[in-house]
Amino acid sequence: MPNAAITLTLPAWIEQEFDPAQVHAGNEARVALAIRLARRNVEHGTGGPFGAAVFDADGHVVAYGVNRVMPESCSVAHAEMMAFMGAQTKLRRHRLNEGGQRYVLATSAQPCCQCYGASFWAGIDELLIGARSSDVMELSEFDEGPLPADWIGELERRGIAVRRDILRDEAREVFHLYARAGGSSY
Amino acid sequence: MPNAAITLTLPAWIEQEFDPAQVHAGNEARVALAIRLARRNVEHGTGGPFGAAVFDADGHVVAYGVNRVMPESCSVAHAEMMAFMGAQTKLRRHRLNEGGQRYVLATSAQPCCQCYGASFWAGIDELLIGARSSDVMELSEFDEGPLPADWIGELERRGIAVRRDILRDEAREVFHLYARAGGSSY
Repeated sequence: MPNAAITLTLPAWIEQEFDPAQVHAGNEARVALAIRLARRNVEHGTGGPFGAAVFDADGHVVAYGVNRVMPESCSVAHAEMMAFMGAQTKLRRHRLNEGGQRYVLATSAQPCCQCYGASFWAGIDELLIGARSSDVMELSEFDEGPLPADWIGELERRGIAVRRDILRDEAREVFHLYARAGGSSY
Repeated sequence: MPNAAITLTLPAWIEQEFDPAQVHAGNEARVALAIRLARRNVEHGTGGPFGAAVFDADGHVVAYGVNRVMPESCSVAHAEMMAFMGAQTKLRRHRLNEGGQRYVLATSAQPCCQCYGASFWAGIDELLIGARSSDVMELSEFDEGPLPADWIGELERRGIAVRRDILRDEAREVFHLYARAGGSSY
């Protein structure tokens, strides 16, 4: 039989984190949620130390993502990809902002080469980043992969604003937690 | 409710294309299959004009992929991503070649920036490409996105051999077929 369907899941604890009425106002509140998801994912042992979320213009969460590479046996299942796919499934469109509304992705750490590339097609208007790639590679064995030399400019020229170093220290701390928990890279 | 699960499917006709006993010997036979999947996807109206497949070292198909962006409302569902996720699901490991066996991805057209990035983590040893990105952008409105300047070298330095221009004319022809079918870009 060929491969007919692929199913990717988020961990059950995600539901307890969800408050549809909550407004996450401002960049710090949005990245703080992404970092909290990354921490919870380590604490629950449900994937790698990465979290992300898609927000609408009002600051409501559209979709969550955490790293699920190991539990799902899927190299695609990075936090940002899970958040993009979750938001698109929920809104039933492959480009989130095609209707003219604005969407933001907040991520606990700079997207790797895969998630960077995916950011161009997902339909986001802004990318909010906690830790830098250099932090990830200093504090863990995760590889971030190659990016275009002017990776921020490439996004901004296509209408995706980039803000980084948001709660960077808190974002870095997740990798210390992960190391103390005995995490290995994948 | 938060986004609990994401399911991505391949079209039903894929099953008829599948012959588990068939050996696809050589690069041309492997890219020919990827191109055939791309053509079939256009003919059946089940997604964009892109096909891909993962092969084991003997030339057996491990998993197929076709573009499913529109039918699945998912910007991640490019042919290469579907093939990677399908192969990983089937073999139950997030890095296909971690056991020491070799795997090849054949794709009808050069991977876009997302699929390029994903290729580093999927666990393939070789990437076989039909049409160039310049062909895709000449013959359709699809955007391929930004890559590192030395995109081939970045793959090869990480152990992924790249062969391109394999059946390039046949691969280009799929985009003419797509245009005649009235396809729009996505």
